[in-house]
Amino acid sequence: MTLQAFLEGELAARREADLYRRRRVSESPAGAEIVIDGRRLLNFASNDYLGLAGHPEVAKALARGAERWGAGSGAAHLVTGHQAPHHALEAELAAFTDRPRALLFSTGYMANLGIVAALLDRGDTVFEDRLNHASLLDAGILSRARLRRYAHADAADLETRLAAAESGRRLVVTDGVFSMDGDVAPLPALAAACARHDAWLMVDDAHGLGVLGVGGRGSLAAADLDMDAVPVLMGTLGKAFGTFGAFVAGSEALIEYLIQAARPYVYTTALPAAVAEATRAALRLARTEDWRREKLAALVQRFRRGANELGLPLMASETPIQPVLLGSAERALEVSARLQEAGILVPAIRPPTVPAGTARLRITFSAAHTEAQVDRLLAALDEAGVAA
Amino acid sequence: MTLQAFLEGELAARREADLYRRRRVSESPAGAEIVIDGRRLLNFASNDYLGLAGHPEVAKALARGAERWGAGSGAAHLVTGHQAPHHALEAELAAFTDRPRALLFSTGYMANLGIVAALLDRGDTVFEDRLNHASLLDAGILSRARLRRYAHADAADLETRLAAAESGRRLVVTDGVFSMDGDVAPLPALAAACARHDAWLMVDDAHGLGVLGVGGRGSLAAADLDMDAVPVLMGTLGKAFGTFGAFVAGSEALIEYLIQAARPYVYTTALPAAVAEATRAALRLARTEDWRREKLAALVQRFRRGANELGLPLMASETPIQPVLLGSAERALEVSARLQEAGILVPAIRPPTVPAGTARLRITFSAAHTEAQVDRLLAALDEAGVAA
Repeated sequence: MTLQAFLEGELAARREADLYRRRRVSESPAGAEIVIDGRRLLNFASNDYLGLAGHPEVAKALARGAERWGAGSGAAHLVTGHQAPHHALEAELAAFTDRPRALLFSTGYMANLGIVAALLDRGDTVFEDRLNHASLLDAGILSRARLRRYAHADAADLETRLAAAESGRRLVVTDGVFSMDGDVAPLPALAAACARHDAWLMVDDAHGLGVLGVGGRGSLAAADLDMDAVPVLMGTLGKAFGTFGAFVAGSEALIEYLIQAARPYVYTTALPAAVAEATRAALRLARTEDWRREKLAALVQRFRRGANELGLPLMASETPIQPVLLGSAERALEVSARLQEAGILVPAIRPPTVPAGTARLRITFSAAHTEAQVDRLLAALDEAGVAA
Repeated sequence: MTLQAFLEGELAARREADLYRRRRVSESPAGAEIVIDGRRLLNFASNDYLGLAGHPEVAKALARGAERWGAGSGAAHLVTGHQAPHHALEAELAAFTDRPRALLFSTGYMANLGIVAALLDRGDTVFEDRLNHASLLDAGILSRARLRRYAHADAADLETRLAAAESGRRLVVTDGVFSMDGDVAPLPALAAACARHDAWLMVDDAHGLGVLGVGGRGSLAAADLDMDAVPVLMGTLGKAFGTFGAFVAGSEALIEYLIQAARPYVYTTALPAAVAEATRAALRLARTEDWRREKLAALVQRFRRGANELGLPLMASETPIQPVLLGSAERALEVSARLQEAGILVPAIRPPTVPAGTARLRITFSAAHTEAQVDRLLAALDEAGVAA
């Protein structure tokens, strides 16, 4: 088959099934409002939970970092790319997560691939929640370990599978907050199951860090779990922290080992030091400005109250990710388009991102939103006839 | 086994075999000189081939981008993260590579994973040069296709394997310039073999773009190969262009398909728009300032002439990557340490980055170097007793 024929066939199949994805060009910075096609829209689509992606202080840190450090690191961390700002950020992330060390990765995708593939090999087993992020599932494949998926957020199902597991190392991997559902993993129960069955627990807290727990310390802090319970904590920097990149936090030995063995750490150009400087500024704001988390939580509660009054098909989420379940891809697209006509941007999430038949709106809130904007969203959802 | 016991065992084994990797913190921006531990060293270690990583114009574009666009994109490209600077950069990369479309990825690692895993599946076959970059080999594993590695830069060996191949799609993947050897792939012969055996050719030109070919258009331009011969061209932005990120360039259908199906494209936060602005500035300089490539080529020739006179064990490379083959990891570390005492930074490259018994110095040149600096390097290599 020619490449062209293959590509055209794949594209046609996706068009047919209402699964074709189209990008829109945003003409404004991330924020509560966003300009697309010359039109200002209310933005309930990004992961900028604390409103830091467009924060002037964070932007200024990036600009100052550029003046001081140039635009690029020029090499991998193990060559000459590891610069003072990366090093300082790692120390600050370790302190933030209350762990001895942290290691900066270029992206969350690469962190997950690097960690799982370094810890496991053929003959080992990785246990994954069925709704884990794509990067965690890809990490399992890349590791060549046996992949066992357990029922979503079901520690009992995990335990059954752990009890049946063959020899070799065992790593249990879960999102802290599930990115398309917004619910929080049952971390204490997962940790207990791991302790009983000699398995290591890794949590990807991409959507929990900065948002949950005292000081935004994430879903582990909220569940009062320490490094003994969860030895591998991964976090991203492009969501609540509003910048770019990711990290893993853990023991001295874990970090030293990943420096040796995590291929997506070793064989890649380090992030620009200026981006690390921006993240340091964002981390300071995220850590100290509790009002952002308080405001965010209040907006989420306001939305849920209003949505329940309207009878909207909410899911069981208390986080800033509030999906509205619609079922078919066609219906999700249609409602998303109606909201956009009303000046509100909420993406339709369709398979394969979510299981077939569970297409949904994915509404996300930010500390940058106002109560009036939440009320406008509720009115538009009502208008669009979303009630169950 | 406890995680701690596993980690300590792995670290001890690496220490024993002289394979332990240590990071050094650089206290200065990327450049011909670099400050480590308070000491100024001549830097022959980075991939900043054109001297753009620390270029004031590129840094200024990053700073201005930060002021205009903030520090982060806030979302994935398919949600709200695709901003005007990303879009403009894609158009400019398409024009630069003379292809209809280009697609920006967060890193080269993710681009390679995304492309290969989207094009192939179980039952298909990927053919890889034995010395391909780690990310290309990982991409093959992630795709779940059959992996067939052919002898380095050996189109005849590839052809034998293609002739023996089973059914399914066939993708041949090669670096344009091999990152640890510096040699250029035999692209016309590889393309001819692909044409004869109904296989698709993908070239990762991370170390060729900006450096080789008229206007820095890379190893395909240097070999006069068009999109029919090489339908999938991948390039990175953190080397000759001095910033961060990567892209793929190809047909309209290829790019549209990757937008749908490349998981590391779909499920990740878009690069900060400010970084895209910096890359646009770097691309303008790389495209128009031919003197950078001319100077770089002259420095490489000067080095090779001098090194041959000294009888140094060079490899067959005409690119800015000039390895000096030393054999054992211990010896490579020892020579690298002696050079550092002399004020020169050249990394020792050891297994598993290169095959066992082929540890080496990896010297890289930049348009930011001077002739006097090259001469200082040659004198230090002579002094270190590297002659074969």
